[in-house]
Amino acid sequence: MDSYYMNDLDIPWRRAVVSVDQFSRADIDEIFGLAARLSVGRTMPLTGKSLVNLFYEPSTRTSSSFYAAMTRLGGSVIPINEVNYSSVTKGESLEDTIRTLECYADALVLRHYDEDATERAVSVASVPLINAGNGAGEHPTQALLDLYTISKERGHIDGLTITLMGDLKHGRTVHSLVKLLRMYDVKLNFVSPQELSLPSSYLMSGDSEYLDLDPVIEDTDILYVTRVQRERLADTMVIDFSYAVTRDDMDRAKENLVLMHPLPRVGEIPPELDSDPRAAYFRQMKYGLHVRMALLVSMIGRD
Amino acid sequence: MDSYYMNDLDIPWRRAVVSVDQFSRADIDEIFGLAARLSVGRTMPLTGKSLVNLFYEPSTRTSSSFYAAMTRLGGSVIPINEVNYSSVTKGESLEDTIRTLECYADALVLRHYDEDATERAVSVASVPLINAGNGAGEHPTQALLDLYTISKERGHIDGLTITLMGDLKHGRTVHSLVKLLRMYDVKLNFVSPQELSLPSSYLMSGDSEYLDLDPVIEDTDILYVTRVQRERLADTMVIDFSYAVTRDDMDRAKENLVLMHPLPRVGEIPPELDSDPRAAYFRQMKYGLHVRMALLVSMIGRD
Amino acid sequence: MDSYYMNDLDIPWRRAVVSVDQFSRADIDEIFGLAARLSVGRTMPLTGKSLVNLFYEPSTRTSSSFYAAMTRLGGSVIPINEVNYSSVTKGESLEDTIRTLECYADALVLRHYDEDATERAVSVASVPLINAGNGAGEHPTQALLDLYTISKERGHIDGLTITLMGDLKHGRTVHSLVKLLRMYDVKLNFVSPQELSLPSSYLMSGDSEYLDLDPVIEDTDILYVTRVQRERLADTMVIDFSYAVTRDDMDRAKENLVLMHPLPRVGEIPPELDSDPRAAYFRQMKYGLHVRMALLVSMIGRD
Repeated sequence: MDSYYMNDLDIPWRRAVVSVDQFSRADIDEIFGLAARLSVGRTMPLTGKSLVNLFYEPSTRTSSSFYAAMTRLGGSVIPINEVNYSSVTKGESLEDTIRTLECYADALVLRHYDEDATERAVSVASVPLINAGNGAGEHPTQALLDLYTISKERGHIDGLTITLMGDLKHGRTVHSLVKLLRMYDVKLNFVSPQELSLPSSYLMSGDSEYLDLDPVIEDTDILYVTRVQRERLADTMVIDFSYAVTRDDMDRAKENLVLMHPLPRVGEIPPELDSDPRAAYFRQMKYGLHVRMALLVSMIGRD
Repeated sequence: MDSYYMNDLDIPWRRAVVSVDQFSRADIDEIFGLAARLSVGRTMPLTGKSLVNLFYEPSTRTSSSFYAAMTRLGGSVIPINEVNYSSVTKGESLEDTIRTLECYADALVLRHYDEDATERAVSVASVPLINAGNGAGEHPTQALLDLYTISKERGHIDGLTITLMGDLKHGRTVHSLVKLLRMYDVKLNFVSPQELSLPSSYLMSGDSEYLDLDPVIEDTDILYVTRVQRERLADTMVIDFSYAVTRDDMDRAKENLVLMHPLPRVGEIPPELDSDPRAAYFRQMKYGLHVRMALLVSMIGRD
Repeated sequence: MDSYYMNDLDIPWRRAVVSVDQFSRADIDEIFGLAARLSVGRTMPLTGKSLVNLFYEPSTRTSSSFYAAMTRLGGSVIPINEVNYSSVTKGESLEDTIRTLECYADALVLRHYDEDATERAVSVASVPLINAGNGAGEHPTQALLDLYTISKERGHIDGLTITLMGDLKHGRTVHSLVKLLRMYDVKLNFVSPQELSLPSSYLMSGDSEYLDLDPVIEDTDILYVTRVQRERLADTMVIDFSYAVTRDDMDRAKENLVLMHPLPRVGEIPPELDSDPRAAYFRQMKYGLHVRMALLVSMIGRD
């Protein structure tokens, strides 16, 4: 039939990007190669195709990135950003919304606040679907673009020392990136306050945990900083917000350090570091565009 | 001059689609023929043209359908979904808004909560305009797509027994569809609670009214189910909400029954019937896209 | 580097349109010539290019105009109209938002409620940027389209008598237009109540001020009427709202008068004057589209 049976991760990523667990190293090589080719030249392979951007939660950054990716490829985007005002308020189920909107589209991008929304959507969708964030679940295209950034900035991934710093407990971005990095031969350092440390299920032997950047800054190839999501902290929790990168850190760091951040930032990296050529977080946005272009072409480019 | 004088229905539908009363059977044949041709192939006859989607009331389904129709034809859409935040709040009249926005567009789609809004807009518009719902008034493109669905699913309209069930009192969708069906040789059955029965002005001799689906399910070719719009019922009114189609109904129905619903649904058709090939309500969405493509091409396709 | 240093008006307008002060008569001739050429024919020189429409304040009219301008040229637009719901609420700075969104765009249009927002945005932007209104500051494309309207309606600007009437104190539109007109050989009349008169810094010798239209209506070539922005008046201020154009005024005016208004209007020009061929305010909207097309092509058309 036209719909999927959701058998954990037994879905080809070309039909639905749900989780980073769907990708092998060979898949990633293929996507990254295509992303690099699409970033130059101006072919428009998706002319006449349309994408529905279905966002139950606002996310200017992610929705704009998919919007730009689709239109640069010649396609059009139907933006549905205010689902609260839509027919959903008339009591329609997510499944019915998906089956209705897919009539107008060659693919769907879905962001939803419920963790099970992706699975429910994929179970009925007959066009390719991309998970753009499902609550506390995954945000696989973010993890792919983070990995692509590392690959583009350094030329390779194997052999690198990668330090992740900030709120490692809540950020789905970090969790998905760690999963992807497990496919490579990398050394991982985790820097966070005790209360925001990486859940133990993500830890492996060989990893190192620290309360401060100081011991690892000099050996780090990639420094990935995340926002402390204050809105998720209990009111009574007092966090030492000193998890910001300083000029002094940069002075001690490698000359070819890559400083990354998924943005938005709220103080973890002060603006005076933006002019440092090692600051890669805005280039990271651009790489994200290219990765999403590659996914869209892979998923809907073939008639 | 460039503006219309609104002489009841003396407006050619190619200049403004206001009401189903504007269409003859020959018009409908032409539109449906074009819709069928546009549904295959990927010509883009509206490249370089633009449409303003002006929605004073939210309607994801309808606005997305026009958005998709226009972009599939190569055109672009200027979506104006939040008129409450727009210059209207500065006291601008609807007429001025129409005359301003038409400067940017080759056609306008208008949904408004006031029944007289379409007439006022048409009186000043110098580009083609489509009524996408005017309060308790009409929603002519919905009625056309319903009729097109019947035509495509069964190959013809004449000779069919068509049963409409649910809230027949309030739904403008039902009223407009009934008007269109009067041009064909069909048998109409109406199934509703007494309190929600079809207004007598829409009834004709030969029609039959029922309180229950039971007596007519076996003879029905097309079963058109509508949502009970609870928000329009008085608080004190207790409705027997048993107006849902059941598996047992489907077992008794014809093998080539066509089960339709304008969506969204809130229980009138349980999801377990979705896999029945006679369930046509999602195909109905797709047919709607094709009908709207045909209208747009007819109205703005010729330079 | 890729970013601008904001040295007052030492920015070429092709890189950032910030203020009317950036334009010479030769620049204006060039833009108007291009606008006229783009208004006929249907070339699509911006195919494959994209524009981010970043509106911190709602403005249907202006955002739609840029949207239409970009799409008519073959490009696409990423509309970001609800910045309040976006990542900005997560504490992101305007500068970071600009640097993020420019990754997805070939140009940015920015409307912001803060007067210093344009300067801050330009200081970090590496793609062309157009100021679409910065608080009480400027709205340079509106002034350009007003001037273009005069030029198109009369064929020339030098030698005309131009009367500006209404709230001359608050409207940035008037202030910017006056600045542009100073480059031409024109006679300027200002008509307003005392409380809403033009700030003296904009006045020059040769200008005339009046409390009423009566003494100047017969000699006026261009009558530019603006809205009294009641929301900016103190509650205690009682204004004589008789600053409306009447049929009698039109009878006394020149046969080739050009009656302009930036819209929306709220009574300054009664709708019964709309059918007078001298009423140019809706044509003004169309001219605005052409001017914005010319700016976009000039700023991003060359690879």
